[in-house]
Amino acid sequence: MGDEQLRQALARIRLLVLDVDGVMSDAGIFLGTNEEVKRYDSRDGVGTKYLIRNGVTVAVITGRESVSVTRRCAELGITHVYQRQTQKLPAFLSLVEQVGVAAEETAVMGDDLADLPMMRRAGLAVAVANAAEEVRQRADWVTRAAGGHGAIREVAEAILKAKGQWESLVERYLT
Amino acid sequence: MGDEQLRQALARIRLLVLDVDGVMSDAGIFLGTNEEVKRYDSRDGVGTKYLIRNGVTVAVITGRESVSVTRRCAELGITHVYQRQTQKLPAFLSLVEQVGVAAEETAVMGDDLADLPMMRRAGLAVAVANAAEEVRQRADWVTRAAGGHGAIREVAEAILKAKGQWESLVERYLT
Amino acid sequence: MGDEQLRQALARIRLLVLDVDGVMSDAGIFLGTNEEVKRYDSRDGVGTKYLIRNGVTVAVITGRESVSVTRRCAELGITHVYQRQTQKLPAFLSLVEQVGVAAEETAVMGDDLADLPMMRRAGLAVAVANAAEEVRQRADWVTRAAGGHGAIREVAEAILKAKGQWESLVERYLT
Amino acid sequence: MGDEQLRQALARIRLLVLDVDGVMSDAGIFLGTNEEVKRYDSRDGVGTKYLIRNGVTVAVITGRESVSVTRRCAELGITHVYQRQTQKLPAFLSLVEQVGVAAEETAVMGDDLADLPMMRRAGLAVAVANAAEEVRQRADWVTRAAGGHGAIREVAEAILKAKGQWESLVERYLT
Repeated sequence: MGDEQLRQALARIRLLVLDVDGVMSDAGIFLGTNEEVKRYDSRDGVGTKYLIRNGVTVAVITGRESVSVTRRCAELGITHVYQRQTQKLPAFLSLVEQVGVAAEETAVMGDDLADLPMMRRAGLAVAVANAAEEVRQRADWVTRAAGGHGAIREVAEAILKAKGQWESLVERYLT
Repeated sequence: MGDEQLRQALARIRLLVLDVDGVMSDAGIFLGTNEEVKRYDSRDGVGTKYLIRNGVTVAVITGRESVSVTRRCAELGITHVYQRQTQKLPAFLSLVEQVGVAAEETAVMGDDLADLPMMRRAGLAVAVANAAEEVRQRADWVTRAAGGHGAIREVAEAILKAKGQWESLVERYLT
Repeated sequence: MGDEQLRQALARIRLLVLDVDGVMSDAGIFLGTNEEVKRYDSRDGVGTKYLIRNGVTVAVITGRESVSVTRRCAELGITHVYQRQTQKLPAFLSLVEQVGVAAEETAVMGDDLADLPMMRRAGLAVAVANAAEEVRQRADWVTRAAGGHGAIREVAEAILKAKGQWESLVERYLT
Repeated sequence: MGDEQLRQALARIRLLVLDVDGVMSDAGIFLGTNEEVKRYDSRDGVGTKYLIRNGVTVAVITGRESVSVTRRCAELGITHVYQRQTQKLPAFLSLVEQVGVAAEETAVMGDDLADLPMMRRAGLAVAVANAAEEVRQRADWVTRAAGGHGAIREVAEAILKAKGQWESLVERYLT
């Protein structure tokens, strides 16, 4: 996808769907005696909030289930959260219908094979820098940043820049 | 070991034995007041599940003992879990007999001296990228990825590719 | 800002204001079932203590709120702690008045857009190495170290060197 | 210090003193609501056990105090543990007397200024790769590995190699 084509695709996005492990978090799963911990990135979180505040719906579809994800989504204002989805496509299709957006208005960020069915149906398929080879090959765009280390922020900024909303957002912090 | 020889060895594998610290997890041991936490890699976990689903038995033999390992093995479907094994070879030999495989059908992934006795008896001795020098020198294959950061996924893919099962696995996510 | 100009600005600092996520900690937010964990750097902590011991007031202004920050500040002797500040500028202005320093005697360390309003009012605006592009562009100084990995220590040493206090501090460990 | 001089110094070591933050652990201090967590390296741990098993006393002298350190030392068999030592030199001198070794039989591994007084009195002063500049400059030897990521293992192997004990240790895993 060329730069201008990518910009146009980004400008259309009204729904961004995120995988959790390897996208919202780095691929690390911290397991102790009592709980499962994930590591999220604060600047990814800020980017997510910027998207939501500017009218882009952000959703999460993940194969695992943990309180960590529930808590992180709650604090970011992500209300569409699908956990324990062995098959991600049905959740994606139901979500698209529920939110009421067209296929070309959706972007999916993934890192592994299980994300491919959603990515193939999305208007824009985004792979994080360290995604599985098969996922990077089939993505419309591969981020420079790795999952859990700024990839979502990179996508959020690109969407808001393509929509012409980034500059005014930055301005608000400068006046 | 040449590429073709490695491919043939991988194609024969029916039992993959994993060390924990430095292989399933990165070498990090997180200790707090109440619990021991380890960091696993989500894509390693997916690779492990792919192996099991395709008929390769995956087992764990580790010198330490923690609830973290018990939980991780349970969620991945690893049923052969030997913890607190000061000597790893007896556990390995007993496991091989129990599973009923020949020596050349076994692979062992290790990172430190304590894994060497198992590795020397295995059909395929695999060292992770950041293994101790003595272990890398004596391994049939050294992975590109470090322990806890994709080394198991790399081995899982290599085994399934050698067996001719990887392509159809990927196809299932594309149709 | 030239080297000598920077040195003079550093020598004037009597109040250093820190953001938390991405500055005191790396950008990681570790979330489990029961708690939020942050990772701080021991050498950053020592640098903070050196500053306080040498008469520089250190304060924290952050958009989030957690017991982790409260505990870290308590053990470092940081008494000015403003958490849950959606707008950071009012907290900064109130802090400056309370401490009783002039604008040119203040330094602010930040990594993201929300820190810009404070940074623009500070005598010295410092961005960590991995700060957002807009923040690095508008900073008087960008540290070599990343947030949570020595950036505060780097600033602490630079301030104490500019004030001519570093050498005697080191001497105390050598005699 | 030349290679041969270093080897001779290493061969004499009967007591190895470790700092905790930045040496036994990486410089990370993980703070949550209820506990302090540190990340140790499994291969550092194995190296420590090899030293103890071969007659080298390993001790810990740290400025902070946490249950994490107490637990880690207990599992490694480190019985000389001095926590909450604002001044490290008195603890070091008392330890040397208690263990009954000469100054040239001691090695100290440190990363920050607070370790310098001990390092200057030790037979061998070792700085980890990422130690503060003043510490690296004054060390007899700077490890290739960073603290918490194999620096202790590197020193343990060097000591045992200099003493001629490493080869037989490896041999035990090969026969």
